[in-house]
Amino acid sequence: MNSTLNRQMLGVAETLSHPSEAEVRMNLRPAAALPSTDELEELLRRVRSAFFPSFFSEGGSNPEMQHYQIGVDVNQIGYILRRQVARGFAFCGSDECTEAMVSRIVEAFLGDMPEIKRVLLTDIEAIALRDPATANHSEIVFAYPVVQVMLHHRVAHKLWQLGVPIIPRIIAEMAHSRTGIDIHPAATIGEYFAIDHGTGIVIGETTIIGNHVMLYQGVTLGAKSFKLDADGRPQNVPRHPVLEDGVTVYSNASILGRVTIGHDSVIGGNVWITTDVPPNTRVLQGKPRSVDTFEAGLGI
Amino acid sequence: MNSTLNRQMLGVAETLSHPSEAEVRMNLRPAAALPSTDELEELLRRVRSAFFPSFFSEGGSNPEMQHYQIGVDVNQIGYILRRQVARGFAFCGSDECTEAMVSRIVEAFLGDMPEIKRVLLTDIEAIALRDPATANHSEIVFAYPVVQVMLHHRVAHKLWQLGVPIIPRIIAEMAHSRTGIDIHPAATIGEYFAIDHGTGIVIGETTIIGNHVMLYQGVTLGAKSFKLDADGRPQNVPRHPVLEDGVTVYSNASILGRVTIGHDSVIGGNVWITTDVPPNTRVLQGKPRSVDTFEAGLGI
Amino acid sequence: MNSTLNRQMLGVAETLSHPSEAEVRMNLRPAAALPSTDELEELLRRVRSAFFPSFFSEGGSNPEMQHYQIGVDVNQIGYILRRQVARGFAFCGSDECTEAMVSRIVEAFLGDMPEIKRVLLTDIEAIALRDPATANHSEIVFAYPVVQVMLHHRVAHKLWQLGVPIIPRIIAEMAHSRTGIDIHPAATIGEYFAIDHGTGIVIGETTIIGNHVMLYQGVTLGAKSFKLDADGRPQNVPRHPVLEDGVTVYSNASILGRVTIGHDSVIGGNVWITTDVPPNTRVLQGKPRSVDTFEAGLGI
Repeated sequence: MNSTLNRQMLGVAETLSHPSEAEVRMNLRPAAALPSTDELEELLRRVRSAFFPSFFSEGGSNPEMQHYQIGVDVNQIGYILRRQVARGFAFCGSDECTEAMVSRIVEAFLGDMPEIKRVLLTDIEAIALRDPATANHSEIVFAYPVVQVMLHHRVAHKLWQLGVPIIPRIIAEMAHSRTGIDIHPAATIGEYFAIDHGTGIVIGETTIIGNHVMLYQGVTLGAKSFKLDADGRPQNVPRHPVLEDGVTVYSNASILGRVTIGHDSVIGGNVWITTDVPPNTRVLQGKPRSVDTFEAGLGI
Repeated sequence: MNSTLNRQMLGVAETLSHPSEAEVRMNLRPAAALPSTDELEELLRRVRSAFFPSFFSEGGSNPEMQHYQIGVDVNQIGYILRRQVARGFAFCGSDECTEAMVSRIVEAFLGDMPEIKRVLLTDIEAIALRDPATANHSEIVFAYPVVQVMLHHRVAHKLWQLGVPIIPRIIAEMAHSRTGIDIHPAATIGEYFAIDHGTGIVIGETTIIGNHVMLYQGVTLGAKSFKLDADGRPQNVPRHPVLEDGVTVYSNASILGRVTIGHDSVIGGNVWITTDVPPNTRVLQGKPRSVDTFEAGLGI
Repeated sequence: MNSTLNRQMLGVAETLSHPSEAEVRMNLRPAAALPSTDELEELLRRVRSAFFPSFFSEGGSNPEMQHYQIGVDVNQIGYILRRQVARGFAFCGSDECTEAMVSRIVEAFLGDMPEIKRVLLTDIEAIALRDPATANHSEIVFAYPVVQVMLHHRVAHKLWQLGVPIIPRIIAEMAHSRTGIDIHPAATIGEYFAIDHGTGIVIGETTIIGNHVMLYQGVTLGAKSFKLDADGRPQNVPRHPVLEDGVTVYSNASILGRVTIGHDSVIGGNVWITTDVPPNTRVLQGKPRSVDTFEAGLGI
């Protein structure tokens, strides 16, 4: 390159090296080491391997080798969690985090793994019950995005319950990027939770979902407007829907605000709901306008 | 780590090593070797390289090198298919699969490759005709997600027609994860099929799409409720829409059930359709409520 | 493999080696070297590292090391851009591209990097202001897909303004694949632009967005039908919406055509809008049909 360009590059680098006013205000040069997304990817791979050894473990289909591999996986899960949980606290500027606290969190998570697996298996059963296109349960585990997103959510939710900062959000975002399904780690989701296809689903922070609920692609369980606190920041209050047991929501429906959808109700596709819906109710979009014959053309 | 934690980890590993009742019921420890997603990724890369040598082949832009590279690609496609098709049958517990059967399937697929390519080129022409933002056909091949998803679909559909289990679904899911477009491998799709943007599109198993059809992002061609069979399992019957030639469906529309959208009809965005639509018809959402002036605020 | 299969593979390879008539017509065997998506991935990684050194740079959290790393990043950005911009012109068959032109483009881009960063920081502030689920600005930078997509858009838009062919589109598509958000590089987007969740958002080529605008997931800013030019090709004219300052659009709304949404208006979810909306207006979907109690069942 010519020397003009070289000089220019030096100048740009110099400018970018100094934190701007906005960067300082937003505190965007944290001094602490960051959580490692690579290690968190590895963590989730290990959990998946320990839960579904015939599918994702290096132990292959030999039961004895699976046994050994699960031991290795659980061990690695413990080590990775220790490091990353500590980093999560440091990144969020928390000085309260002691080594004993990290140990308690890791122990609690490990102790809960069999229960996380049990609930995840109910999600797989729910899909098998709902989707006529499924050949068998193995196909669901191996090829359905819902398994990935619920594995991430049930792990992230446990860590969120244990008070771990930022890590749960990163784990949720990994699944969001791959599946297009965005579930806030704080959302409470019951057993036998089924998602079909799923791209575009959003489940907000304070959502509460019962058992045997099914969501199709593009469904939003979101918030309406919210009050600001004294500092002009939006308040973190319950602001997302409650879906009782047995609710089904069809594609692209948006349900907003702290409303309750009563048990066994069915929400049709593409509706916009901001009020309660009683149990056993079916809500459908208003009739479309079917417009007369018209000249065939490219569009609308 | 301390020895308490070590003992705990051993216990958790032990628990996870024993298949739970639910796992046994769902048969989630299959003894057979699994299809390899890495090899299937390689398969699709090779097909893409053989179809579009100037874009994705290691042969670069030199026609003679492209010639050699296509030979290598086709050879690899044959080898990978043999291995993976056999694994697909084994994974699904089929003992009927003989080596002769696998050979017949691989031969049939290879023989159909030029036809698959021919149809895929019609999809690229369809996009060029519809999208004013396109500079040239090369840009579509190189940068449009529709090419990836239709390459995967037309390959997966052929393998599905040849009776290969699970592999077509995995190939479809690879494209779904990258493009947000979820097309069941069994769906029948005509020539000159155009998708623009595409995120969130779902095309169900028994869908039938004619020629010169265009779908925008977020469109669902899905199923309504379905009957259960004697075992309480959903029946796999025709339950998705038929779109005749020349139909256009705008963003986020949901069309559900075995309904027919007549030729050259246009379905507006965000509508919910569960009945037939005659040919040459335009269907639009009912009028929105335009609500008065209101205090400016964050939300709704 | 048997020799029949070998002979067949040779025949298929031979057939695929000869460009079909359609391929020739579409000019799908361009002779020029292609832009490299790997290098463009590296380019965006370097920009991200230079803008957010505490998060994504190899310099870690040490300010002096960050300083050095930013110098290396900017230098690499310059080198990669030179190569890829030249390839972009060659790929598009432009002979007008001289080395001096490439240098001018690279210089202009580098000179604009601090301004790109400044505007990107306003997007991060906008999210912090709108999302009650956010703990701090660092969490947004580290875990929110909007930062990735707007980093890609603001870089791609600059290169598009400088007249670089195809590269901006590839950069946009990288972000689309990972986030499900599809923003055409030509779209004009003001400051403090907030996207929440975002999967399924489409922003068309001639869209104009003011300041302090917020879009939720699944929103389409698209085109209606368009006129064809003398060659039967769709005309590239203004055909996407204008959103004035302070507009909020809720999930899955579709706004189509060159319509204007007046300042501070709120568009409710799942509506379909093809006409102007005055300022300070709230537009909601027509009332849904709330259908009576019905027998509980799987679907609709």
